Amino acid sequence: MKLDTNDLKDLAVGAAFLGTGGGGDPYVGRLMVQQCLDEGLEVELIDPSEVPDEALVIPTAMMGAPTVLVEKLPSGDEAVASLKRLESHLGQRAFATMPIEIGGINSTIPLVVGARLGLPIVDADGMGRAFPELQMETFGVYGVPGSPMVVSDEDGDQALILAKDNKDMEWLSRGVAIRMGGCAYIAEYSMTGADVKRTAIPNTLTLAMRIGRTLREAKKRHLNPFEALLELLPQTLYHHGRIIFSGKIADMQRETRNGFSMGRARIDGLGEHAGVMEIEIQNENLIARVDGVVKAIVPDLICVMDSETAEPITTENLRYGQRVTVMAVAVPEIMRTPEALAIFGPSCFGLDHPFTPIETMPR
Amino acid sequence: MKLDTNDLKDLAVGAAFLGTGGGGDPYVGRLMVQQCLDEGLEVELIDPSEVPDEALVIPTAMMGAPTVLVEKLPSGDEAVASLKRLESHLGQRAFATMPIEIGGINSTIPLVVGARLGLPIVDADGMGRAFPELQMETFGVYGVPGSPMVVSDEDGDQALILAKDNKDMEWLSRGVAIRMGGCAYIAEYSMTGADVKRTAIPNTLTLAMRIGRTLREAKKRHLNPFEALLELLPQTLYHHGRIIFSGKIADMQRETRNGFSMGRARIDGLGEHAGVMEIEIQNENLIARVDGVVKAIVPDLICVMDSETAEPITTENLRYGQRVTVMAVAVPEIMRTPEALAIFGPSCFGLDHPFTPIETMPR
Repeated sequence: MKLDTNDLKDLAVGAAFLGTGGGGDPYVGRLMVQQCLDEGLEVELIDPSEVPDEALVIPTAMMGAPTVLVEKLPSGDEAVASLKRLESHLGQRAFATMPIEIGGINSTIPLVVGARLGLPIVDADGMGRAFPELQMETFGVYGVPGSPMVVSDEDGDQALILAKDNKDMEWLSRGVAIRMGGCAYIAEYSMTGADVKRTAIPNTLTLAMRIGRTLREAKKRHLNPFEALLELLPQTLYHHGRIIFSGKIADMQRETRNGFSMGRARIDGLGEHAGVMEIEIQNENLIARVDGVVKAIVPDLICVMDSETAEPITTENLRYGQRVTVMAVAVPEIMRTPEALAIFGPSCFGLDHPFTPIETMPR
Repeated sequence: MKLDTNDLKDLAVGAAFLGTGGGGDPYVGRLMVQQCLDEGLEVELIDPSEVPDEALVIPTAMMGAPTVLVEKLPSGDEAVASLKRLESHLGQRAFATMPIEIGGINSTIPLVVGARLGLPIVDADGMGRAFPELQMETFGVYGVPGSPMVVSDEDGDQALILAKDNKDMEWLSRGVAIRMGGCAYIAEYSMTGADVKRTAIPNTLTLAMRIGRTLREAKKRHLNPFEALLELLPQTLYHHGRIIFSGKIADMQRETRNGFSMGRARIDGLGEHAGVMEIEIQNENLIARVDGVVKAIVPDLICVMDSETAEPITTENLRYGQRVTVMAVAVPEIMRTPEALAIFGPSCFGLDHPFTPIETMPR
C-alpha cells in the first residue's frame, strides 16, 4: 500500500497515541515524510507476510532524548547512512526497512529511509509502542541480536557497535549518541523475513493510521472520539482500552538525565474522577497511580490525551493547566510473556509493582 | 631484532621516561610482554626502512586513564581483537603493528599484539612521547586519517568508529572507552609502509631501551645516571636535555575527569634549586614553572625522576615527600613544526604560553 498525505496525518496522530507519551514529536516526523512525497518519492508499506523468509530486513530509527530532537532537526539522510553502512558491513543489500518502535518520530524515520532508497517498509515494529532503551524490543526478546548496529549523526560521523548482548549495545551506543549531541540515527536488529514474522509485532503502522482516522472521523461527525477509539481497539491486537482518569495538570517535573527525558506529572481529578493521578515518565509514561493506587503499568499503554480534542499529548508537550483524559490500553500478548516482561516489564524500570494487565486491573 | 627479558626491563624504564609522566604504569606493560616470552612467543622489532611501501601497518594501543588501568589489568587479547576487527573491516591482513605512543604501557601493548599474532613491531611511534588524546599523533599531523578505528574491551564488546576527522574520532571513542569502564584497547591510523616512513617518529622503541640501559649501566658502575643520560641524548633525535629543577614534592592534587587524570604537582626546591616548581598534568606533565616562570613546555618532555635512583616516576606514582629531579628534553623536529604544534602544542591544552624549545629557554 502506498501512503498519501492524509495517511501521514493519521499516522502521526496514531503513533503519538501508541508512543504512550514518548518517541519524539510526531509532527516533526510527519513533515520529514511529507517532504519525500512532495519530491515525488513513494512510501510503500508491505505486510510482514509479503517479506520472503530469506530476505534481509534492516530496521532504522532515531535514538536519543525527544526533547533534544526538537531543537536539532534531522535531514533524514542520517538514518539512510546508517542503513547503507550496515549493508556494507553485512555484505548484503536490504530488501526492506522497518520501524523498531511505533511511537512518534520512530514510526516515520523508516518511511523516510524507504522513500529515499526505494525500499518498502514492513508494516510491523519491535516495541508495539515506544520504549526508552534499545534492548527493549521483541526482536531481542525472541532471539534476534541487535548488533551489528550503526549510529550516525548529521556531521558524517559513524560508529559500528558490535556488542556481546543487547544491553551492552544500548549502553555503548547511548554513549555515542550523547557525544553526537544528544540524538543520532541508527540501523540495528538486521534480520531475515522469517525472523520478522516470528518476532515483530505485526501491522502497527496501519494500526496507527486506523487510530488517527478513527479520531479524525469521529470528530468530523461530532461523535465522542474516546468512545470511537474504545470501539476500535477490540478489533485489534490491542484488545482492551479504558479511560482511567480525567482532570487538570497541576504539576510537571522534567529533566534530561543520562540522555533520557525523566519526569513526573501530577493531575488533579475533575468530574467523576476524584483524587490525584501521578504518572512517572522515562521518555514514556511508565506507571499511573491515583492516590497511590496503581491504575496502569508498563508495558500496557498509558496515553494522555487532550480532553476536548482527544489529541494524544507527548510527555514533552504536557503543560500546567491542560485538561487531559488518560486512557490505558492492553498490549499484544507477544509483549506480555515472561520473556518479554524480563526485558521491558516494570522491574526493568526500577518499579517494584508486578505487571497487571489493564483488563484485570481493579477499576 | 628479537627482544629478551633484559630488553623489556630497559624498555619499561625508558618508556616511563619518554612518557613524560603519562602512558600508564610501565611495570604492568612489561609483565604482559614477559608473559608472552615465557610462553615461548617471539617479540621482533623491525626498522621502519624494513617495511615495504605498500605493506599495511595497524598500530595498537590502550586508551583511557592510566589510574583506571592499574585497577583493571588487560589480558592482551583486547588489542588483538581490535587489530583483527580492523583487518576484517579493511579486507586486508596487517604486515606489522606499531605503537601510537612511546609512553608507559602503550610502548608495550603492540609488543603483546605482535607476539600473539606472529607479526613484527615497527620500531617507531606517532607521539614520540605520551599524549592524552588520539588526534595528537604525527600520523594525523602529516595526513594519515585515524579512522576507521576499533575500540574493544575485555568483555567482547567492540565499536568501529568512522569519524569525519581525528578530533571527532577521539571524542566518540573516548565516550565508548569511558562506558567500557574507563579504559579500552584500540587499533587505529592504519597506514602503508610509505606513510610510516613519512609520518612516524623513527626508532623510539630502541631509544627507550637505550635510555633504560644507560641508566642501569651507570648505576651499576656507580656513575651519575643523570649525567650518563644527558650524554646519550645528543646522539639521538632527542638532541638536548637538561635538569631544570630538584627538590621535594610538597603537594599533589589529582582527579579523574572526563576520562583523563588531571592534576598539579608542587615541588619545593633543594640545594642549588631555590623556589617552588609547579607542574600541570593532563595524564602527562604539560608545563613546569618555577616561581611562575616557565622552564619547560609541551611538546618538549618534562620528566620527573627519583633523585636517588634516577627512576622515572609516572604522574600516578608521585607522592608527597618524594625527592625528585626534573629533566626537560627536546623532542624531534618533526614534532615542533607549525602543523605539529597546531595539534599538540601548548594552546591545544589551554596553555597561553607559546612553545619555546628547551634548548633556547632561559635557564
